[in-house]
Amino acid sequence: MTNRQLGVGVIGYGYWGPNLVRNFSNGISTHVVSICDLDPGKLATSQRLYPGVTTTSDFHDLLTNPAIDAVAIATPTRTHYDLALAALTAGKHVFVEKPLAPTADQVRRLIDEANRRNLILMVDHTFLYTPAVQKIRELIHTGELGEIYYYDSIRSSLGLFQSDVNVIWDLAVHDISIINYILKEKPISVSATASCHVDGSPENMAHITLFFDSKCVAHVSVNWLSPIKVRQTFIGGSRKMIVYDDVEPTEKIKVYDKGIILNPSSENAHQLKIGYRAGDMWAPHISTTEALQTEIEHFADCVMSNKVPISSAASGLEIVEILEAASRSITEQGRPVRLGQPIAFRKSA
Amino acid sequence: MTNRQLGVGVIGYGYWGPNLVRNFSNGISTHVVSICDLDPGKLATSQRLYPGVTTTSDFHDLLTNPAIDAVAIATPTRTHYDLALAALTAGKHVFVEKPLAPTADQVRRLIDEANRRNLILMVDHTFLYTPAVQKIRELIHTGELGEIYYYDSIRSSLGLFQSDVNVIWDLAVHDISIINYILKEKPISVSATASCHVDGSPENMAHITLFFDSKCVAHVSVNWLSPIKVRQTFIGGSRKMIVYDDVEPTEKIKVYDKGIILNPSSENAHQLKIGYRAGDMWAPHISTTEALQTEIEHFADCVMSNKVPISSAASGLEIVEILEAASRSITEQGRPVRLGQPIAFRKSA
Amino acid sequence: MTNRQLGVGVIGYGYWGPNLVRNFSNGISTHVVSICDLDPGKLATSQRLYPGVTTTSDFHDLLTNPAIDAVAIATPTRTHYDLALAALTAGKHVFVEKPLAPTADQVRRLIDEANRRNLILMVDHTFLYTPAVQKIRELIHTGELGEIYYYDSIRSSLGLFQSDVNVIWDLAVHDISIINYILKEKPISVSATASCHVDGSPENMAHITLFFDSKCVAHVSVNWLSPIKVRQTFIGGSRKMIVYDDVEPTEKIKVYDKGIILNPSSENAHQLKIGYRAGDMWAPHISTTEALQTEIEHFADCVMSNKVPISSAASGLEIVEILEAASRSITEQGRPVRLGQPIAFRKSA
Amino acid sequence: MTNRQLGVGVIGYGYWGPNLVRNFSNGISTHVVSICDLDPGKLATSQRLYPGVTTTSDFHDLLTNPAIDAVAIATPTRTHYDLALAALTAGKHVFVEKPLAPTADQVRRLIDEANRRNLILMVDHTFLYTPAVQKIRELIHTGELGEIYYYDSIRSSLGLFQSDVNVIWDLAVHDISIINYILKEKPISVSATASCHVDGSPENMAHITLFFDSKCVAHVSVNWLSPIKVRQTFIGGSRKMIVYDDVEPTEKIKVYDKGIILNPSSENAHQLKIGYRAGDMWAPHISTTEALQTEIEHFADCVMSNKVPISSAASGLEIVEILEAASRSITEQGRPVRLGQPIAFRKSA
Repeated sequence: MTNRQLGVGVIGYGYWGPNLVRNFSNGISTHVVSICDLDPGKLATSQRLYPGVTTTSDFHDLLTNPAIDAVAIATPTRTHYDLALAALTAGKHVFVEKPLAPTADQVRRLIDEANRRNLILMVDHTFLYTPAVQKIRELIHTGELGEIYYYDSIRSSLGLFQSDVNVIWDLAVHDISIINYILKEKPISVSATASCHVDGSPENMAHITLFFDSKCVAHVSVNWLSPIKVRQTFIGGSRKMIVYDDVEPTEKIKVYDKGIILNPSSENAHQLKIGYRAGDMWAPHISTTEALQTEIEHFADCVMSNKVPISSAASGLEIVEILEAASRSITEQGRPVRLGQPIAFRKSA
Repeated sequence: MTNRQLGVGVIGYGYWGPNLVRNFSNGISTHVVSICDLDPGKLATSQRLYPGVTTTSDFHDLLTNPAIDAVAIATPTRTHYDLALAALTAGKHVFVEKPLAPTADQVRRLIDEANRRNLILMVDHTFLYTPAVQKIRELIHTGELGEIYYYDSIRSSLGLFQSDVNVIWDLAVHDISIINYILKEKPISVSATASCHVDGSPENMAHITLFFDSKCVAHVSVNWLSPIKVRQTFIGGSRKMIVYDDVEPTEKIKVYDKGIILNPSSENAHQLKIGYRAGDMWAPHISTTEALQTEIEHFADCVMSNKVPISSAASGLEIVEILEAASRSITEQGRPVRLGQPIAFRKSA
Repeated sequence: MTNRQLGVGVIGYGYWGPNLVRNFSNGISTHVVSICDLDPGKLATSQRLYPGVTTTSDFHDLLTNPAIDAVAIATPTRTHYDLALAALTAGKHVFVEKPLAPTADQVRRLIDEANRRNLILMVDHTFLYTPAVQKIRELIHTGELGEIYYYDSIRSSLGLFQSDVNVIWDLAVHDISIINYILKEKPISVSATASCHVDGSPENMAHITLFFDSKCVAHVSVNWLSPIKVRQTFIGGSRKMIVYDDVEPTEKIKVYDKGIILNPSSENAHQLKIGYRAGDMWAPHISTTEALQTEIEHFADCVMSNKVPISSAASGLEIVEILEAASRSITEQGRPVRLGQPIAFRKSA
Repeated sequence: MTNRQLGVGVIGYGYWGPNLVRNFSNGISTHVVSICDLDPGKLATSQRLYPGVTTTSDFHDLLTNPAIDAVAIATPTRTHYDLALAALTAGKHVFVEKPLAPTADQVRRLIDEANRRNLILMVDHTFLYTPAVQKIRELIHTGELGEIYYYDSIRSSLGLFQSDVNVIWDLAVHDISIINYILKEKPISVSATASCHVDGSPENMAHITLFFDSKCVAHVSVNWLSPIKVRQTFIGGSRKMIVYDDVEPTEKIKVYDKGIILNPSSENAHQLKIGYRAGDMWAPHISTTEALQTEIEHFADCVMSNKVPISSAASGLEIVEILEAASRSITEQGRPVRLGQPIAFRKSA
């Protein structure tokens, strides 16, 4: 692949697939060779927009095409495992929509397959490549916020109800990927509750608490049935605090120089030793680069230089493990479920 | 008391007490006779503003004063039970800051005492008397929203850290009183998580899920350590949805004619039978009447006409039971705790 | 042209041209035959996106092409007159970017030419076709707002500085077209002030007041040098008032049932006979239809059915006359300039 | 007056008077001796709140009271001149509500009287003492914003219609006092337009442009008939720009590191030599000190130390001159009126 572009085949031209095709087409290091979808109408649309790309309704055509180095999978979650496994087995690098697969076991098998064949397996957690999340991670890792106390997020809007995954696999997965990326520690247990307001549908509203060994706590609230779109995250640190509002066209991140100060010399037992500190607010300029373009260049770079992606399959596994644990907690109305018990997990695999 | 104003003694002139004194003084049916506080500086301040009112540092002076018909208690939560019991025993009607008492058992004993003496015991859940909450209750009870799917609320700001109660007894108590008032059903169990970021302080951040027998779910997020003040509640119904933002100076309530519609004739198993409906938004005019004034007139009216208050001690008991159950769930990281098991509860009392 | 699509040639593929090509391509009643631009790079881009369309750098190629029924002109304002005149002379219907031409005289000559040849000449005042402006016009014309007292608008952002027109010909033209469309009366004079903060550039900031025979007044504030994007219009009526915020993704229009009430029986000479009325706010649902698509279908319909367009050349003339008068007022620091003196105007032509 | 508090008499206990009494009462260096109003009900109210203060309906009682060092005047504008002149003649320092007097001539006579008697004559332009305006002035005077290009302000809400002054004397006076205070130069001419929507009332909506010798321009938009309250000011500089929103409870001032950059080496005649620069936004922490308290302490300090106040009568004169010129421009629909022609002005006096 040296000195040339990565040839990409895209499976699935529904909601997200067109974004993948557009960005793989516009990428410096990538071009689209073929598009696969079961719907002839969608293939016709893609053909009209990208006359130079072939189309097919049989994904095997992509796997046997020597011009295709990598396969991007943007199909319903329940098909991710079979398609990714087939692509890896055919020697293709793989880029999969989030979540990587419906179960942690399946993710582990895909990782094994990718490792055995020395192929890149990357999961599309687009938010990690947004300038906003990159800036937040930087502010945390440089110590600007101090010790991290909490991550508290709301992600809600009206729709789209999914048929094969519930709201945590559809929306909370974004926050969990962000938490996993920006924090320096991993959660140790999870408590989650959820509810379903449409008979026969998956849960459309959920709340997840992630516990850490430190004082840090993360909470994620997701809802498919909200009258307005909310994408708001509060991150509290011992030195500063962030409000990250992704609905804002500009000023997505506001950094508050606010907090509490401890007064060790308080005499009164009933009086708290706490004072309040209020300083300036600062909104760093955030570039308007499209995250998916950055991510796709990163994928191409990982393939060409054999690097571990930011949204590696290993990180995708951690996220799926958290979603699995949250799902178990949901069935028990919030009973906490421990994470990071790899042996027990693997046994069941 | 016929043909005259209710004479009131106020115990506690700290954060909330001055508001009580101001409103009991301005009330048509009430006047303040005496103020009690342990801090001479606060008494001097009150004396300067209200020269006609006597002051004392001994609350027994209020209990023995025949000009005092009712005692209002605005002291730390841990003192509510003893003060309210003494006032009732002295034959005074009692108005107590929220929460009524630190334990459900104590509340039950106060209720027994009030009932035995045929005295009014009312808890100050001020939010129930705001024009906004009154309007929301009306919209729910007239069926305007349809079946209620969820109540989801955030109540956060920087401070004030309390020393004797944690954030759920300080802030979530407001939402629980509202939920208890506006919904037509009672929660059956609760899952809650919380965390503490200041050593030696009570929990400063918590998330509570309340389950109901129906599809309805309520969630309350509270935080003493937020960079900005948030007072936002989403209420989802099958017909309409509300966003209630108490930080807004006007347009506190927005009613959205939005929702989902079910399509029973969908053929595709994987395709959800759900459509989306987006209509007008409507912000009913909300009067700017001060809730505490309304509440105090209501208290006087209940005393004079021997009526059951909206924020009766019985409703205060339900709220304290929920807070107790949430506290137990917090110690077990979200394990659900059932509500409404009165016998077992009373046994432990 | 019966039973077939309108063949369109587009001149100018810079900032706005690509939007025209996209919408003329997607239109039910239109298709793009050829694109003309002087920049070979832009032609190459258009060719790549629309392989079936021919390209040329000579606009005469469009005028002589029998497959082209109409020409759309999206070039700098100073070229509008020559290009439109040439197109009309060649028998093509014409769709021109706003403003129609740099002077009212030129607009009159284009109108004469179009009338003589019975061709449609339409100016692209896109805002008139937005669902928001359509809704506002409806609210005014049904009497919902009562008598209109004022239209007060701010339209500002950072950039883009134009080289051949100042900020009123670039931005205020939008508001003037809206005012001309939604109100039932025409302005009779104008006072305007402007300033230039970049040597050698056109004015980048301006304020325009339009006077009417009635009590109504219109004010437009435009600025190319604002730190944030503002698109806010207040419309005051005797019965209701509108806030129209085009930056809002939803709830663009808010209708306030607010105003003053006159009390004719006031006795005090110094006391005003005015009371205040505050009622509900209502945000009608606004569809998200792209205005340019609506406008282009309307253009095709006008051509095919020989109808007068909403944004006719005659209305475009009124707008240019107001801009000319405002420009004269600007050179005299706000001295008012009368409108609607057609004879004197025509003499100078 | 050394070593003791300034004794103050307050004339007028209507809308603003109670704020003056409260702040003169709470001030470290001031106390209220007596309150004068023509309305016995208002006097009774003040007596109840301030039992130690005497009341009278005859302002002469204040002028002859030796315990009164200074008189504060919060009466309708048309009475300012007579009351202030009488107070100065009686040897009292004077603090007058804005605007100082209805005409510049009257202000000049008051200044003469104050100078002759070496008394402090200060006008209450409260906004100058807000932490926000103080911060803006600092940002301008330290050069943080660079060269100032514009001040553009909107100040509108529903009511209160005044009976004796129009909207520019009521609301625009605030902006003109701020402009006069924060900028380093004085306006040289003014163009203004206004309209009246209630028969028999003063103008309720106005727009004022102030021209300076430099590139700087100021524009003020005021309206008593707006559905929502707007208090928004944009200040553009060559280096940075400010958005000052006084309706915001916090983050009143946002400083944008944005602007244009000139590219002197542009080759294309039609292409502007302008680039755009977008950097961080910063909201300095603004204290919540009540401006009137700061102002009243400043007044006491000026009296005791014989200092020139920030809102001196001389600055009040400049403001009234601008309002007079704007009023003349309004009668001629925006025709510009020159400022700073003191001789002609004085002749008419």
